[in-house]
Amino acid sequence: MGSLDTNPTGLQLPDGAIDDADADVFRPLDSDDVRSDLHKAVDFVADYLQSVESLPVLPDVEPGYLRRLLNPTPPASSAPFDVAMKELRAAVVPGTTHWASPNFFAFFPATNSAAAIAGELVASAMNTVGFTWQAAPAATELEDLALDWLAQLLRLPPAFVTCGGGTGGGGVILGTTSEAMLVTLVAARDAALRRTGRGGVSGLPRLVAYATDQTHSTFFKVCRLAGLDPANVRTIPTGTETEYALDVAELCRRMQADVDAGLVPTYVCATVGATSTNAVDPIADTADVARHFGAWVHVDAAYAGSACICPEFRHHLDGVERVDSISMSPHKWLLTCLDCTCLWVRNTRRLTDSLETNPEYLRNDASDSGAVTDVKDMQVGVGHRFRGLKLWMVMRTYGAAKLQQHIRSDVAMAKMFEDSVRADDRFEVVVLRNFALVCFRIRARGAMTEEDADEASRELMARLNRTGNVFLAHTVVGGRFVLRFAVGSTLQEERHVRGAWELIEKTAEIGG
Amino acid sequence: MGSLDTNPTGLQLPDGAIDDADADVFRPLDSDDVRSDLHKAVDFVADYLQSVESLPVLPDVEPGYLRRLLNPTPPASSAPFDVAMKELRAAVVPGTTHWASPNFFAFFPATNSAAAIAGELVASAMNTVGFTWQAAPAATELEDLALDWLAQLLRLPPAFVTCGGGTGGGGVILGTTSEAMLVTLVAARDAALRRTGRGGVSGLPRLVAYATDQTHSTFFKVCRLAGLDPANVRTIPTGTETEYALDVAELCRRMQADVDAGLVPTYVCATVGATSTNAVDPIADTADVARHFGAWVHVDAAYAGSACICPEFRHHLDGVERVDSISMSPHKWLLTCLDCTCLWVRNTRRLTDSLETNPEYLRNDASDSGAVTDVKDMQVGVGHRFRGLKLWMVMRTYGAAKLQQHIRSDVAMAKMFEDSVRADDRFEVVVLRNFALVCFRIRARGAMTEEDADEASRELMARLNRTGNVFLAHTVVGGRFVLRFAVGSTLQEERHVRGAWELIEKTAEIGG
Repeated sequence: MGSLDTNPTGLQLPDGAIDDADADVFRPLDSDDVRSDLHKAVDFVADYLQSVESLPVLPDVEPGYLRRLLNPTPPASSAPFDVAMKELRAAVVPGTTHWASPNFFAFFPATNSAAAIAGELVASAMNTVGFTWQAAPAATELEDLALDWLAQLLRLPPAFVTCGGGTGGGGVILGTTSEAMLVTLVAARDAALRRTGRGGVSGLPRLVAYATDQTHSTFFKVCRLAGLDPANVRTIPTGTETEYALDVAELCRRMQADVDAGLVPTYVCATVGATSTNAVDPIADTADVARHFGAWVHVDAAYAGSACICPEFRHHLDGVERVDSISMSPHKWLLTCLDCTCLWVRNTRRLTDSLETNPEYLRNDASDSGAVTDVKDMQVGVGHRFRGLKLWMVMRTYGAAKLQQHIRSDVAMAKMFEDSVRADDRFEVVVLRNFALVCFRIRARGAMTEEDADEASRELMARLNRTGNVFLAHTVVGGRFVLRFAVGSTLQEERHVRGAWELIEKTAEIGG
Repeated sequence: MGSLDTNPTGLQLPDGAIDDADADVFRPLDSDDVRSDLHKAVDFVADYLQSVESLPVLPDVEPGYLRRLLNPTPPASSAPFDVAMKELRAAVVPGTTHWASPNFFAFFPATNSAAAIAGELVASAMNTVGFTWQAAPAATELEDLALDWLAQLLRLPPAFVTCGGGTGGGGVILGTTSEAMLVTLVAARDAALRRTGRGGVSGLPRLVAYATDQTHSTFFKVCRLAGLDPANVRTIPTGTETEYALDVAELCRRMQADVDAGLVPTYVCATVGATSTNAVDPIADTADVARHFGAWVHVDAAYAGSACICPEFRHHLDGVERVDSISMSPHKWLLTCLDCTCLWVRNTRRLTDSLETNPEYLRNDASDSGAVTDVKDMQVGVGHRFRGLKLWMVMRTYGAAKLQQHIRSDVAMAKMFEDSVRADDRFEVVVLRNFALVCFRIRARGAMTEEDADEASRELMARLNRTGNVFLAHTVVGGRFVLRFAVGSTLQEERHVRGAWELIEKTAEIGG
């Protein structure tokens, strides 16, 4: 209490004394309150999803807008639940970029479903912390089952599936692709350090990781986190000749040059469906080259992995039986709300070697028996949310056929959009459309230079996004400004894609 | 489709052809379905919380139990929502370790509330991915506000509070303490590498981190993740003379010895409320020593930080104005369901220097203006769930007084339990009770050796946990087996604590 002077706002906090009202018993999980409050929250959610189409996709707010609407200091006393819901409606919704809007075409969509939200709701109420099997047997085993089910839908090889029986592979559900990259990179790093016989981390400056200029930026961050020398992280350039995919011959040359220089090829990140362009690196050839040099191959299929539950897209994973690990995020394109990234590894022992901890306070008979894997040993942290429930609910409720239908419908709508762009000679489609992302730009025609087309495309995007009727993002490919039109927001129907195209046509016309 | 042979289970997946039923439009976010399914899920949740007291806290299941109850292959076609709910009741609930049970006394409790679950529900339906301010202005700003509110309740110094105005401090809500430690350790690591003038990571083997033998195991894992040499991670022993807290004089000696040996003191993790014993490291003195050697000080107040919203516990944070960062987890003791770890840093620039990425596809005017912080630059990954909503809902709905009442009630119940233990000479309380954790064991009396008392305590715990009527965890302190009785599961009332004590008394009698 000698620290009152450090209270920056002068908020009056009650001291030891409790007044009459506060002497009432406080039951924050009273089941009547839970029922009543959550039914209200459900109605809010259903109303929101029903009306989100009519809201501006990008809100018209300035940085700091919320501070002007809500109290800068925390309330001293309690308020009815409705007060928070009222402020949510008045202050939060109007400042939201509506990822749930059918007019959202930016980034990759965050798809969602009633089953997933219900699963998350139940998980947040059960609120298990499944660091070990003992701490949450059902959560550990349902996560395991959900991973096996999804592995079957993806036709992953038996090495990655627990029920395949004793091959040593398995998976874990993490929060983000970044964590999947980090834990596999650290496993690869430690294996390389052991293999090259240097004690401790003195061999670290010799380890090298490889990716392309289309690989997600988080890969490069993860390399920094794990202590790799940024100078030893190779970015292999891509271009139209490989449709922006990894040039495996170049990978091979780089690895050989590194070996010749006394360095140790350690980790290759291959992408199926890169963020900018949806490029697909050739997994099989990459794995062959990497294996020759003893490097770990991780496949990042965060977005496009979901498409591979359809036989017609599964060929993008050909060769996966030769890689060390693969991750994909159902929170992107498999109707499962954030967060849910599935990681499978061929040999869980290589992960747990780097990530295992055994504090006395978590020891228990099941762990000691060796009959269970404790998820704390396959992730960065210890605490583990029950993410498997929502993923299992999605597959259990919708089944393979509906999930495939969902993917195909998005791809069909993207193709429709692509056809429209191709039919209008003011535009060009810049890269091969592999899935449901269309990358296009204004075409340089007549006196218009490529730089003019960059500027016109940028201006078109700004003007479109200001309408509030659509939200598109952009990227730069081959030095050129490109609009990304990502189909697939869950509420999206053909009419929204057609509407967006009409708006683009009209806006481009006005822009000249 | 040439990969059918890699399908390990022979599951028949529909090919390109879609049958009549599947040709129906699939609307996984249809608002009528959302409303109906979620109302059912709410009733499940309320019923569960109402009945959880009657369920065995630790389930009587063997590893692999779930595979015998659920289908090993994913369903090909859809099923009514009720099917998943039915299997949830039949297969998941009976295999759950019930963290929500009022008879759960293990680990630290995962406290929860109606407001938090509602906040999580709304967040999972809005499903924003707030990597940048532009991608979710309301989510970014509400997270910021929630962090400021909580900082005020904790009386953190203005340096950590955004609204303090331009001091460069701020915060972010992460998933786990481990991530908070990782990002701050990496920031400290990179600053030390720059300061010591070595290029790249060649200076890494010289960096040293410090903690005590009571520090959470995840700290040592995080050091490995960040590439520190395990031989350079100092574990300072503790004992009864400091009540298991950090011996600052010893820290100073170790740091000086490391400097003398040409090493670089880089990071100190001080804990407020250690997991095993609830020990509290002396923050002010630790910060003074660390500052002298130029090391970063992080305070891990994961559990006990919540208690510091009460003036009578705030002194445990005295000196926090001199540290570099502090984290605490409302998902432990502040009624906020998983996951929610708040990290505040004195200088956000030191974090973003290490964690910033700027891929073209995330560039936007708001970020370019410098007027906003993008949370992607303060965490491991890119995607960011809207965790601020539930934390804000908790503070908005319950207010400071009720939250303090909640803490005080738990501490009072723990004191009551401690008094009971002290009054029974078959037991001893092993460490000072700082908060709501009581560490006790069977006392070695008469011919009983300390080893006998270890065994008797272990046997007592096993017998108690087998009843299903309570769940206690254990630890080892000073080489001795100790039972941890953690009060605070949200549904807990005095009668549960009394009941647990009666069961312990009775079970010890039978055993003795």
